[in-house]
Amino acid sequence: VPPVFKYKQLLGILERLNAGEIVIGDGGFVFALEKRGYVKAGPWTPEATVTHPEAVRQLHREFLRAGANVMQAFTFYASDDKLENRGQTLKLTGAQINEAACDLAREVANEGDALVAGGVCQTPSYLSCKSEPEVKAIFKKQLDVVLFMCLQYFEHVEEAEWAVQVLKTSGKPVAASLCIGPEGDMHGVSPAECAVRLVKAGAQIVGVNCHFDPMTCVKAVKMMKEGVEKAGLKAQYMVQPLAYHTPDCNCQGFIDLPEFPFALEPRILTRWDMHQYAREAYNAGIRYIGGCCGYEPYHIRAVAEELAKERGFLPAASEKHGLWGSALEMHTKPWVRARARRDYWENIRPASGRPQCPSLSTPEGWGVTKGHSELVQHKEATSAQEMNRVLEMQKKAKSSA
Amino acid sequence: VPPVFKYKQLLGILERLNAGEIVIGDGGFVFALEKRGYVKAGPWTPEATVTHPEAVRQLHREFLRAGANVMQAFTFYASDDKLENRGQTLKLTGAQINEAACDLAREVANEGDALVAGGVCQTPSYLSCKSEPEVKAIFKKQLDVVLFMCLQYFEHVEEAEWAVQVLKTSGKPVAASLCIGPEGDMHGVSPAECAVRLVKAGAQIVGVNCHFDPMTCVKAVKMMKEGVEKAGLKAQYMVQPLAYHTPDCNCQGFIDLPEFPFALEPRILTRWDMHQYAREAYNAGIRYIGGCCGYEPYHIRAVAEELAKERGFLPAASEKHGLWGSALEMHTKPWVRARARRDYWENIRPASGRPQCPSLSTPEGWGVTKGHSELVQHKEATSAQEMNRVLEMQKKAKSSA
Amino acid sequence: VPPVFKYKQLLGILERLNAGEIVIGDGGFVFALEKRGYVKAGPWTPEATVTHPEAVRQLHREFLRAGANVMQAFTFYASDDKLENRGQTLKLTGAQINEAACDLAREVANEGDALVAGGVCQTPSYLSCKSEPEVKAIFKKQLDVVLFMCLQYFEHVEEAEWAVQVLKTSGKPVAASLCIGPEGDMHGVSPAECAVRLVKAGAQIVGVNCHFDPMTCVKAVKMMKEGVEKAGLKAQYMVQPLAYHTPDCNCQGFIDLPEFPFALEPRILTRWDMHQYAREAYNAGIRYIGGCCGYEPYHIRAVAEELAKERGFLPAASEKHGLWGSALEMHTKPWVRARARRDYWENIRPASGRPQCPSLSTPEGWGVTKGHSELVQHKEATSAQEMNRVLEMQKKAKSSA
Amino acid sequence: VPPVFKYKQLLGILERLNAGEIVIGDGGFVFALEKRGYVKAGPWTPEATVTHPEAVRQLHREFLRAGANVMQAFTFYASDDKLENRGQTLKLTGAQINEAACDLAREVANEGDALVAGGVCQTPSYLSCKSEPEVKAIFKKQLDVVLFMCLQYFEHVEEAEWAVQVLKTSGKPVAASLCIGPEGDMHGVSPAECAVRLVKAGAQIVGVNCHFDPMTCVKAVKMMKEGVEKAGLKAQYMVQPLAYHTPDCNCQGFIDLPEFPFALEPRILTRWDMHQYAREAYNAGIRYIGGCCGYEPYHIRAVAEELAKERGFLPAASEKHGLWGSALEMHTKPWVRARARRDYWENIRPASGRPQCPSLSTPEGWGVTKGHSELVQHKEATSAQEMNRVLEMQKKAKSSA
Repeated sequence: VPPVFKYKQLLGILERLNAGEIVIGDGGFVFALEKRGYVKAGPWTPEATVTHPEAVRQLHREFLRAGANVMQAFTFYASDDKLENRGQTLKLTGAQINEAACDLAREVANEGDALVAGGVCQTPSYLSCKSEPEVKAIFKKQLDVVLFMCLQYFEHVEEAEWAVQVLKTSGKPVAASLCIGPEGDMHGVSPAECAVRLVKAGAQIVGVNCHFDPMTCVKAVKMMKEGVEKAGLKAQYMVQPLAYHTPDCNCQGFIDLPEFPFALEPRILTRWDMHQYAREAYNAGIRYIGGCCGYEPYHIRAVAEELAKERGFLPAASEKHGLWGSALEMHTKPWVRARARRDYWENIRPASGRPQCPSLSTPEGWGVTKGHSELVQHKEATSAQEMNRVLEMQKKAKSSA
Repeated sequence: VPPVFKYKQLLGILERLNAGEIVIGDGGFVFALEKRGYVKAGPWTPEATVTHPEAVRQLHREFLRAGANVMQAFTFYASDDKLENRGQTLKLTGAQINEAACDLAREVANEGDALVAGGVCQTPSYLSCKSEPEVKAIFKKQLDVVLFMCLQYFEHVEEAEWAVQVLKTSGKPVAASLCIGPEGDMHGVSPAECAVRLVKAGAQIVGVNCHFDPMTCVKAVKMMKEGVEKAGLKAQYMVQPLAYHTPDCNCQGFIDLPEFPFALEPRILTRWDMHQYAREAYNAGIRYIGGCCGYEPYHIRAVAEELAKERGFLPAASEKHGLWGSALEMHTKPWVRARARRDYWENIRPASGRPQCPSLSTPEGWGVTKGHSELVQHKEATSAQEMNRVLEMQKKAKSSA
Repeated sequence: VPPVFKYKQLLGILERLNAGEIVIGDGGFVFALEKRGYVKAGPWTPEATVTHPEAVRQLHREFLRAGANVMQAFTFYASDDKLENRGQTLKLTGAQINEAACDLAREVANEGDALVAGGVCQTPSYLSCKSEPEVKAIFKKQLDVVLFMCLQYFEHVEEAEWAVQVLKTSGKPVAASLCIGPEGDMHGVSPAECAVRLVKAGAQIVGVNCHFDPMTCVKAVKMMKEGVEKAGLKAQYMVQPLAYHTPDCNCQGFIDLPEFPFALEPRILTRWDMHQYAREAYNAGIRYIGGCCGYEPYHIRAVAEELAKERGFLPAASEKHGLWGSALEMHTKPWVRARARRDYWENIRPASGRPQCPSLSTPEGWGVTKGHSELVQHKEATSAQEMNRVLEMQKKAKSSA
Repeated sequence: VPPVFKYKQLLGILERLNAGEIVIGDGGFVFALEKRGYVKAGPWTPEATVTHPEAVRQLHREFLRAGANVMQAFTFYASDDKLENRGQTLKLTGAQINEAACDLAREVANEGDALVAGGVCQTPSYLSCKSEPEVKAIFKKQLDVVLFMCLQYFEHVEEAEWAVQVLKTSGKPVAASLCIGPEGDMHGVSPAECAVRLVKAGAQIVGVNCHFDPMTCVKAVKMMKEGVEKAGLKAQYMVQPLAYHTPDCNCQGFIDLPEFPFALEPRILTRWDMHQYAREAYNAGIRYIGGCCGYEPYHIRAVAEELAKERGFLPAASEKHGLWGSALEMHTKPWVRARARRDYWENIRPASGRPQCPSLSTPEGWGVTKGHSELVQHKEATSAQEMNRVLEMQKKAKSSA
């Protein structure tokens, strides 16, 4: 969920945030469009901006309607060589895909009061231990093409600093979001220290996105804020968490959960969970509040409804939603009508309907990070031999756990 | 999810089914569009066909792309007076909404090899004990307007029989689907007897939809099939279940679960659950296999992928899906690549991430049915007084349970 | 938990029951003494009556103190050849063990107002398809030695009938308890038919014990009662269920659950579950109410406390128990004092503290019964070859499930 | 579970521990005897040593037989004025009860190779803010009467220091166990600091008991050990945890769980959980390994079986237990025989059989500690007015959580 902004817009966002306005983000496109049939889990590339623009446009519209102030261009998250080896047959370049993405975001943003944003993500090159100049060259290239000003989904604060340094050369404001939780980045750097380093590198907005559930992400951003304030620095804060409950994650986030990415359904947050999240984030002093993987338009609408009083208005999509379930008053059955009240939904503990499944999983215990030979990017799909090696490593990790 | 077909198309569907072809249905529009912001839970009316055709069209396209052979027109499920009192301000008539619905379904169906279907549902009038002629007049009116040939979501077989009798007068084939489980209809009539009565009334396709999870629905249709065969009759069979696990339902289905309709998330089926369902339905001799509330396009794609060998082809959306997760072979992290195998996903027991929630709920114990004074339809929203009465009845029901 | 009674005492029990008195049974000794270190799970033989009489005596005392009216002698549940091959080195005969058992039960019964009971259980010989005369000879032998008058833990009503026929020849009254649930015996004979056959064979008390949780057992006895009454016959009813929640059992009971016998802890009933059970059993017209495997003295006390009003007195052990937790009023911490009320405990939904475990298990799907070659009794411990065959059969059963 | 030792015996225990020997403790008597009907939950006083010595003696024997090297005298845990107001009618003094307790422990210890221990626990007087001299006078009194040398179940390290200082005046060695977890004592003093302070005060053995599950307690003792070693001090370590899974506890332990004390059943550890615990504790360098509330004799046997190789022998009760379930080889049913292997039991995830219950609870959020007016001890049972105040405080705590 890329919070990178074109120049004018980022000014726009800073002005809004500094004026105390709440900015509501959208949700993650990769997961939402995978369910709709337009993104392939595994490579996760966004060529749908060219091949199926109507599907991408429709999702933008739904988030706008749900209350989002930011239309994030569904841009490509990595280097051209990655795109090349991800099995797309149209021979589209990253530039083509990203340009289409920006046009679509712009088109829908113009239908309402929204900012257009793009994104710069972490690179496979960093994990494969390429040098600082090599990695920075990649960021620079992306900057040239789409003029993006923001970064997100960084697991390593060092790489994020590099990216901020590059993006800053444009003279434009920069927002930076890591995919870390309260335990910090993959090298154990605490959220507080990460935030301080990013602000010092030049970021005006810092926060976290992806990898953890809303409450965990808010907790991490709170730690960032405390760190920044303790250091006598100033910043705005953003949070764009998963729409999945992940109390069982280790520091690597939901990717290490055995359910990732095809069996996460029982973890999906309800709209009422979203109310709680929005309130918690607001109370923590975070003013850019959005979502990432797992978010559907109704999740963002719930955020907008919870903060309607503070913002002064309801989102368009609330014409199709009774606040706190109040439209159930018109349901046929009286015992469903009896659910048309805040008290009911605020306290519900929803059952999974899966009595033979556990409540929590055991995440993979790998703990590998930058520099591990298994993480070197390659173009080929996994070989049988490679797979066997991985399964053996897994076994070893489990038996030593 | 209305399986009612225009004349030519229903012939089409019968010819297909009788030739042993598998017909894949689509999913329920009401729930999917509620999440996208275009349908209001409570009244559940489909005026989006007029107000937001792009959203309805896009959902049709996604189901088509996922492998559906049937485009069900998103038609209005009840009488004009219901529409009137459901708070829609545009003063649209049922006829206008339904006509737009048919046009949209036809438009997308023409983009692929799909049949257009509409639907006739149970009427509030029946629950309010209107007479047989009064109820039949409503069915006749719907027949005149949209030429629908099929019925679904009937809790009472008697009312369904009346509808079949009316629809039959058009001389066209009729499909009939009840929203019942293995315990039978709301008066305790068994699935076997229901099916026999519907076939005798003139239905060529019988089955169940909504209210229960896939395995429960397949079980009910199996009982229908056994009943029909025992009676020496002939029919085709259809099933369009929920995409929610509902092992804790009583005979009234998921509406009586405390999570209905706003906290059903933890119950959502994974794509792998759908594979199981598709196989089970096929093995039971059911050839019209689709979905109802809770289905997203990827659920239907999973049905189509499971039955790809029998059908001889994969759906279009499978270009964006590795069978059994195989596209994870291209994931960055080796331990995620290790999940690129059928064995992994077929055996996963996904955690809910909600350790403070139960696995099963206790459904409302009302057991009320046709003729109960609390069920009389009224135009007004629930009054405070009425609500109190309901809460008291609930309390009484619980203490005697 | 053997409800077989010496002559005078069985008369005693019939007189009590026929007078409308509630008779409270004790709990199962095998499981309770296994946890205390005196019975070996697997062979489950009761030689502790000879080797550690103090432990057996103490358990009798605790159940007596908890309110039990019946002291069941901890007698041997099978034939001498079984005892022989169960690895006990003292060369004790069944007769010696059983005599010691009766003496201990008598000794403690004399300390209060309790009846002494013994038991006749199903035989390995029946499962190994020995003939009716062969099986009856075993029952006769047990009759001669300990003069037992009752039978329990029978999975096959046919064998139970044979036992009743033999025991009846003594001219003494007979009680008969099967270890079946609502689905009936291992050949599918319904509880109603089982009960009718047992009463016709001469039993005056019929019921079920072991294998299922309290509510399931009460349901089965209700079906027995309806059957007996429909047939115009008369009987008294008994129930002695497990103290484990077993909603996931198939017809073979808790033995087929993967947790049997060493991981059943999370299923143990609370004392408040026991209150519910006692009330339910009483309301169903059952007057002999006790327990089987898993029961500890405080479970029986809870049964006695629930029925204190009907019986007119509390058990001795209630001097150490505040009704419905009332003694917590004297707890140090005020928030624990706040739990000193019926309403609190009656509605508690206790957490398992095991978020990585499921709520329900899948029982073994064997369905084997009398005559299956794998069930032939043998003296030797399982060989490696035999084990492999079993594991393969298991695999097959699972894959076809 | 009081690890306080008479002079000669504590020397004995130090000699054993310092020689690298494993000392296995027993389990908690209060909970075990409550289930057997001899202790009243709420006041929890041990007058059974006088009124029912046979029950106390039998439990000692069972733990001895299960492998315990320590017989903890079932002594009174608090001041005479507490005993006075706890509703016991026999007018027994603490001295009488404690003397009987010591005699019983001595009697059974002589039957095997066990040390006799007693205990000094925290005082109501401390919570009620009595002065240091007042509290120390209580400890001194207990020292005079029973010559106890050890302390346990202290929530506040300050009070424990006072106790160590008093007990040390006897010139005898002292062991000190707090009921804290990794978060430290009720004033937030870390386990490391607590341990250092206790060793500096004169304790030779330090550790934790009660309040948390085994893995949590081992973790806390590890932190103690690290603290002591970092400070350049020396000590031996002890751990006597609950036999309940408590991952959902806050720093106040299981007392704040809603299930305490009458609905803890689903949390009871299996014997296989105990194997894991014993290994973990041993690996952490802890050599005094026992149990507290919830332990039954078979739990201690499992500890002794896990450490049989290190100790060089099995406990007596293992004659009635096949290691890792091996005695199931003699079970009647082949699929139960298939469970006679370590691999099976080591990996079992036991179901609760309670699908309508959660996995985790929310502990009371009080956080009150010493000095809170609600904690002042009083003789009277809770009044209705007091109860109402508590319920209101609870409500407030929840709404602010």
